[in-house]
Amino acid sequence: MHTNIQQISGGITTPKGFLAAGIRCGLKTSGNDLAIIYSQEPSIAAAVFTANKFQAAPISISKQHLASASTIQAIVVNSGCANCATGEQGMLDAQRMTEIAAAGLNISSDSVLVASTGKIGTFLHMDRIEAGINNALSVLNRDGGLSTAEAIMTTDTKPKQVAVEIMMQGKPVLIGGIAKGAGMIAPNMATMLAFLTTDAVLPKELLASMLQEAVNISFNSITIDGDTSTNDMSAILANGASGVVPDESDLSIFQAGLNLVCLELAAMIVRDAEGATKLLRIHIKNAPSQDTGRKIGLSIANSTLVKCALFGADPNWGRIMAAIGNAGVEIDLKDIDVYIDKLSLVKNSRAGVFDQSLAHQLLSANEVELIVDLKQGTQEAVVLGCDLTTEYVSFNAHYST
Amino acid sequence: MHTNIQQISGGITTPKGFLAAGIRCGLKTSGNDLAIIYSQEPSIAAAVFTANKFQAAPISISKQHLASASTIQAIVVNSGCANCATGEQGMLDAQRMTEIAAAGLNISSDSVLVASTGKIGTFLHMDRIEAGINNALSVLNRDGGLSTAEAIMTTDTKPKQVAVEIMMQGKPVLIGGIAKGAGMIAPNMATMLAFLTTDAVLPKELLASMLQEAVNISFNSITIDGDTSTNDMSAILANGASGVVPDESDLSIFQAGLNLVCLELAAMIVRDAEGATKLLRIHIKNAPSQDTGRKIGLSIANSTLVKCALFGADPNWGRIMAAIGNAGVEIDLKDIDVYIDKLSLVKNSRAGVFDQSLAHQLLSANEVELIVDLKQGTQEAVVLGCDLTTEYVSFNAHYST
Repeated sequence: MHTNIQQISGGITTPKGFLAAGIRCGLKTSGNDLAIIYSQEPSIAAAVFTANKFQAAPISISKQHLASASTIQAIVVNSGCANCATGEQGMLDAQRMTEIAAAGLNISSDSVLVASTGKIGTFLHMDRIEAGINNALSVLNRDGGLSTAEAIMTTDTKPKQVAVEIMMQGKPVLIGGIAKGAGMIAPNMATMLAFLTTDAVLPKELLASMLQEAVNISFNSITIDGDTSTNDMSAILANGASGVVPDESDLSIFQAGLNLVCLELAAMIVRDAEGATKLLRIHIKNAPSQDTGRKIGLSIANSTLVKCALFGADPNWGRIMAAIGNAGVEIDLKDIDVYIDKLSLVKNSRAGVFDQSLAHQLLSANEVELIVDLKQGTQEAVVLGCDLTTEYVSFNAHYST
Repeated sequence: MHTNIQQISGGITTPKGFLAAGIRCGLKTSGNDLAIIYSQEPSIAAAVFTANKFQAAPISISKQHLASASTIQAIVVNSGCANCATGEQGMLDAQRMTEIAAAGLNISSDSVLVASTGKIGTFLHMDRIEAGINNALSVLNRDGGLSTAEAIMTTDTKPKQVAVEIMMQGKPVLIGGIAKGAGMIAPNMATMLAFLTTDAVLPKELLASMLQEAVNISFNSITIDGDTSTNDMSAILANGASGVVPDESDLSIFQAGLNLVCLELAAMIVRDAEGATKLLRIHIKNAPSQDTGRKIGLSIANSTLVKCALFGADPNWGRIMAAIGNAGVEIDLKDIDVYIDKLSLVKNSRAGVFDQSLAHQLLSANEVELIVDLKQGTQEAVVLGCDLTTEYVSFNAHYST
């Protein structure tokens, strides 16, 4: 890791000038289910939204606000209801959430982002939401990061938060983040959400491109079941409270710090995947481009058959080769090597003779390292996936009813 | 159905002038595992091959022969070994299979196609193959269709064959076919194979385009687990033995007959899918194009979460909407209706109020009809899928070892 970057305990309220609170307003059967993240000063903001064309109301409203307002000062988020497939009423409700928060904070509703996660096709209990927002506003504080991480959970089994301190020009700058699971990138339980804060001074366009890069290598490089939810959203607020204006050389440090926060959160999401027993870390090496590498990694990680083999700790390399061939990228398939850790399974795209019991043992670990050497370039990509288990199927077969 | 088309019992030796034999040569642990399909006269031929970029040796050899020879007279096929990821030796072995068959039949090896299905990464036992081909040649006969359908099985539980008689210009023309499962479009058990025969008189280009259309709406419109094997192949031989030269108006009858054979075989494959308990028939209606409809249908059928919900008979329409949004096509998502049979689940992309227990009951049937009305065009598509079961995961977790 970069010597100027240090992971520290904390989350979204670790950077200077951010307050937050997660509280319970009664949308879920138990636990916190509504939160507000607030910056004391107007923040530069950027966000990445789901690629699913069927998008929830809060996604539309947040996009509008991000486009119309020059700064963002708060994010209001609820779990327990995705406010998706809710038509005009859903749009009005999402907009109303930003208005209630804005009124309490005495800011413009345009400077509030909104996110929801939970069941698709049900309407928000706006009375509970309104009371909840006002309640959360009354308890906003500098230690509210963890309660906020809890309030965005759905099928997650634990809250997910990360903070790093980076040194720029000899001064500390902080980045914090929380995320909620693609537990199973569930169904009616839409969503991967990630909220990031920093006290760095950064212009909007730069912040947006740095967020996009961090998201590409983290949240866009993990897969639980290949389904992209209707409510996915990653947003970052940069309030400049550190007073540190990065120069050219600091930017790569900031990017590395942001990448670290997102990568750690992404790994937490995969480790907490519903019904999964193992994390699969796929390194695609010597690829013609990072994008090609990522597509190949995702094709492997999304292959039902590869995931089943991982569950059974079965070194079924034929499934891996078939998944590479199905990645939809133009590459030469004649000289590919595949390893689990240091054990060679495939050499030059042909069956290797390997120790089956050692392979089985390596595949039985909690975290499995799969290396695919394409030998046709200098780029690389890392993709995280998990196994497909009988428990996952049972859980998802009997969810909504 | 077209009044000039009648499904009859039979398979690939039902059309005039075709002989076949399936025999056991010892590649699988039990059952027939090698077959030859032979036309007494040179045949016009066409084929569609796997889109997986990692292709088995027999796929390469068959492509070469189809390109270089003006007619094809035989197909040699084995199960138990896919001859994939076998490098130069695999290519020599696949070519040798065509040479052994050609020598026995006294034809050019260029006029022989070859196909293999079974484990990836193992080499063919060429001594057994050679003895097997000669054995099969010695018993070629007009009743060999069923033994051939048996010889191409891998994890299939039953042989799959279909025949139809169509009337063109008042005279009967026959089309027959066999297929083997995408039982699980397995792993090391690569492959969907389909072989079709007809005694119609048809020029090569027309035959190729008609085969492509039939394959698109049948084998390319089914999915078991979204994985495309390295060995998939559909081939048709048209030997002209009926003497009936179709005129313009007959061509649509022939296409409908060919479609029927392929659709029946495709449905048999899905019904025989490894570990699946239900067939899901997805009708996409009022689509802007057939292709758009098919992509949406496949996105639904490939969604892990939709497949789990189907297993549990859970009317989880949110997952269906999310899968439509993930299909990667440009459509308007605001006014979509979704039904199970006649029961409305979603109206204008919003949650309908429906009888949950009736929905559960409809989803508990062996065959489930899902209708998606896009209301933005006049085209339609039908896609067949199946549920994802705990049995499928267990089976595929412990397959190769």
